[in-house]
Amino acid sequence: MPASITYTVVEMSPEELDEERVVLGGLADAVRDLADASLRTTVSYDDVAEVRAELERLTARLRTEQIPGSFGVSVSTDGAVRGHGNAVVGLRNPIAPPLLVERSEEGRARASFHLGAVYEGPPGVVHGGVVALVLDQILGEAAAAGGSPGMTGTLSLRYEQNTPLGECSVEAWIERTEGVKTIVKGEMRRADGDTTVRAEGIFILPRWAREAIEEHGQRPPRFE
Amino acid sequence: MPASITYTVVEMSPEELDEERVVLGGLADAVRDLADASLRTTVSYDDVAEVRAELERLTARLRTEQIPGSFGVSVSTDGAVRGHGNAVVGLRNPIAPPLLVERSEEGRARASFHLGAVYEGPPGVVHGGVVALVLDQILGEAAAAGGSPGMTGTLSLRYEQNTPLGECSVEAWIERTEGVKTIVKGEMRRADGDTTVRAEGIFILPRWAREAIEEHGQRPPRFE
Repeated sequence: MPASITYTVVEMSPEELDEERVVLGGLADAVRDLADASLRTTVSYDDVAEVRAELERLTARLRTEQIPGSFGVSVSTDGAVRGHGNAVVGLRNPIAPPLLVERSEEGRARASFHLGAVYEGPPGVVHGGVVALVLDQILGEAAAAGGSPGMTGTLSLRYEQNTPLGECSVEAWIERTEGVKTIVKGEMRRADGDTTVRAEGIFILPRWAREAIEEHGQRPPRFE
Repeated sequence: MPASITYTVVEMSPEELDEERVVLGGLADAVRDLADASLRTTVSYDDVAEVRAELERLTARLRTEQIPGSFGVSVSTDGAVRGHGNAVVGLRNPIAPPLLVERSEEGRARASFHLGAVYEGPPGVVHGGVVALVLDQILGEAAAAGGSPGMTGTLSLRYEQNTPLGECSVEAWIERTEGVKTIVKGEMRRADGDTTVRAEGIFILPRWAREAIEEHGQRPPRFE
């Protein structure tokens, strides 16, 4: 993997992106359900060994044609950028819950989602690092929603109480902007709406985005 | 999922835990490889649909017998606690890389691991939230290694440069302890050893652990 980062672009029409959402998003959904089942199963070790052998066969079948490295982002012909491989919101990424983010132009983002057994830390509780993972993403989404997409510069989290596994939600909003820095606050909430963790972050417009803006003479791409 | 947290205990012998590691850890490995393949595949949509149908059948087979809720922790008869379901170190958890953590009794923990395409944020780069996820875990491991296991109270991260996907490592150490609070620092490092992200956290001995200590009249369990 190179140390320098390239901004990979794959041109797709909105229709092609929709088809990807249904077919390959459906595959990711199936792998998510399998991950939960493989963690919780108590079938016999013989059954487990047979399932494993079948999974290895199916993996080999998927690998007969594949992109050489990581996923990158897809840019549709209408200019929208979709991070379908993203570890939090990527509908093609089986480790992403995935979050379906609602955004408003004044720099606010929110999402409701379910965190099951694979996101556990202490018994029955969402892993503290998983809370950080989703908060980092939603704070970045708020920055982007307000027209200031950026990469995480700092992130500070205060854990006020446990977040039980199950239904959860996050919300974030821009506090203020200072040049290439956007200061964002956000919260994790449990099913009854109580705040469990508070976050504050500084997001910085990265060089590749600044270069893309200069090259294409336009504002940062919308991330969807 | 109940709002109150129970400290689930499953008694297993060291031999049973080793067998779980091989058989069910192997299943999780197969699901990890499948997750990577399903994200990167470019086979035809017909092939994808067939693979999906087979995955759903295998998932149903694993679900014929399963634990009812989340995984919890396993306590072996030698008193060691293993979080095989943990989202970062759980060898049975397909979303965990998983980290194999080395610990020293003076409160230091480290791990080297590989982060592939499913951990991506920006193109070619580890998701900032994934960095937070692994740092939260390794800081907690350092606290536990020093005899002060705890849950995250605060976590502050400073992102100094991108972490390219690929080989990575983390290290954490106890700075000091104040009653039930343990102050821990740590770092994420890229393949060449350069520090990419610095972290500081406060970890707090949780009530369930304090109660378990009072009930069993012993020090906090070793987490392995």
